[in-house]
Amino acid sequence: MNIKNILVVSPMYKELRLFIEKEALHKSFRFLPEEELSQNDLTWADALVSFNLKADYDYSNVKWVHSLGAGVDRFLHKKVWNEEVLLTRTICSFGQRIAEYSLSYILRDLQLHDNFQKQQQQKSWEQRTPKLIADQKVLVYGTGEIGQMIAKVFSSLGVYVVGVSLSGTWKDYFQEILTLDSHFSRLSEMNYIINTLPLTEKTEKLFNHAIYNQLSNAGFINVGRGASVDEEALLQALNENQVRFAVLDVFVNEPMPENHPFWCNPRVQITPHISAVTTPEEGAACFLKTLKNIDENQPLSNRVDTKKGY
Amino acid sequence: MNIKNILVVSPMYKELRLFIEKEALHKSFRFLPEEELSQNDLTWADALVSFNLKADYDYSNVKWVHSLGAGVDRFLHKKVWNEEVLLTRTICSFGQRIAEYSLSYILRDLQLHDNFQKQQQQKSWEQRTPKLIADQKVLVYGTGEIGQMIAKVFSSLGVYVVGVSLSGTWKDYFQEILTLDSHFSRLSEMNYIINTLPLTEKTEKLFNHAIYNQLSNAGFINVGRGASVDEEALLQALNENQVRFAVLDVFVNEPMPENHPFWCNPRVQITPHISAVTTPEEGAACFLKTLKNIDENQPLSNRVDTKKGY
Repeated sequence: MNIKNILVVSPMYKELRLFIEKEALHKSFRFLPEEELSQNDLTWADALVSFNLKADYDYSNVKWVHSLGAGVDRFLHKKVWNEEVLLTRTICSFGQRIAEYSLSYILRDLQLHDNFQKQQQQKSWEQRTPKLIADQKVLVYGTGEIGQMIAKVFSSLGVYVVGVSLSGTWKDYFQEILTLDSHFSRLSEMNYIINTLPLTEKTEKLFNHAIYNQLSNAGFINVGRGASVDEEALLQALNENQVRFAVLDVFVNEPMPENHPFWCNPRVQITPHISAVTTPEEGAACFLKTLKNIDENQPLSNRVDTKKGY
Repeated sequence: MNIKNILVVSPMYKELRLFIEKEALHKSFRFLPEEELSQNDLTWADALVSFNLKADYDYSNVKWVHSLGAGVDRFLHKKVWNEEVLLTRTICSFGQRIAEYSLSYILRDLQLHDNFQKQQQQKSWEQRTPKLIADQKVLVYGTGEIGQMIAKVFSSLGVYVVGVSLSGTWKDYFQEILTLDSHFSRLSEMNYIINTLPLTEKTEKLFNHAIYNQLSNAGFINVGRGASVDEEALLQALNENQVRFAVLDVFVNEPMPENHPFWCNPRVQITPHISAVTTPEEGAACFLKTLKNIDENQPLSNRVDTKKGY
């Protein structure tokens, strides 16, 4: 594939420009914020680097789209993709970032941070013993790059990590791999549930009563996609103690509307989609590496299977 | 050494009894709460298992004292020890427990928990990027069992871990080992400081202006002993941003008096000496293993050097 004209459309276009222009490539670039995009730019470009596609434009000249995010549902979910267009996605320290995010909230729970914070306000000296993470069972939905890094970090701390995989294929660092069909009977033994799945037809509203009803006072962490969660069902599960607490980084609607009941639920911790941020430095590095691989006709490990959606 | 009569004096004497009697050893045991201890028991006993020694008793018949805690300052600090008496201490999952305690508070800081909690109260959706732990430098005072386990856990996450050792002896899992004399010039580059040192003459009020003045907005975690901290100096360092926050599990006086300024300092998190609890199960297991080693004349890895104080 011959890529000459590259259009970078992103809120962080200035920072990306700095890192990309350092390389002094023999390519033509245009760097734009999303609100300045025009059809003229898209007609000019062979390649588009962006977090998403805007409706109402003709993308038919573009041969390669590189997603600045890890998730590509904004490009594929409930959309038709032209199979002749290459789609790649950013893979960088997302796995490490999401593993540390998840670990931080699980350790906070095991180490009773909220309890000791409350006691301090009351000047109360009452000993309670934190739990060791090695005694915990963690179920990770998704065994790709991100799920595997979670499994690597957690298993190094002695955690029993079980994966749920759509394919059921064996992956390193997991003690067991279950499939969506086979995993229901195991849910009650899990202390923590972490969702890392991409949003596809198969994962939309996957976390509904059928899963929550099997849980027994588990902690639930969602770092996948908000639309994989049936929000009504989650609120009910929190209310009925199947879910003891939820840490949510992704939501059906982002930013979350002010009247959403999650904001005020004391068992819900909200973070504003920050568990796997693409920094300009890492985003530029992954794009540049992908471009080099395309120019040199090398295999692309970050190529998206547009039928599968990830 | 011939041990026949063993006196177990502890607030958890009932739980210890359960685990110890399971073994059906050919020894005589007495299990007592601290308030029921009498001179008669101490005259009877060859061995004493306890968290501490009570004043005003004659211990001269006791040949072996086993500390139920990891720290033995309650036995040795500012006291005279009869060198003919064997002193051993409990070593169990303390290292793992303290590593997870420390990790939980460092990840909480890096992942901006307090910031996102505050934002949630205000229903504010404002993205900030957490920091990766692999970009941090952590200085651990003490390179014994506990310091080494901290180094092992943190280095597995990519942290640059530096140890401060009284002897300067090389230990695994540390990137560098500094001595007390040589370490001052390196303090400004450290993101987090963790004290695990035992309380001895050398470590009393070790954390004073001389150390704090070199720090640059570091997080300070004390899981060693409270008396190693000059509390006035720490309050000043918090006030002047040399120390950004302190997580304190140990104090000069425990329980902390109600009028202590730490309680209300928003930069101080207090926990009531729970980072390395001896559970009855682990306490009993370590005692039983030590007893077996004594009976079989095996080397004792948990023997205390009473001159050094650890």
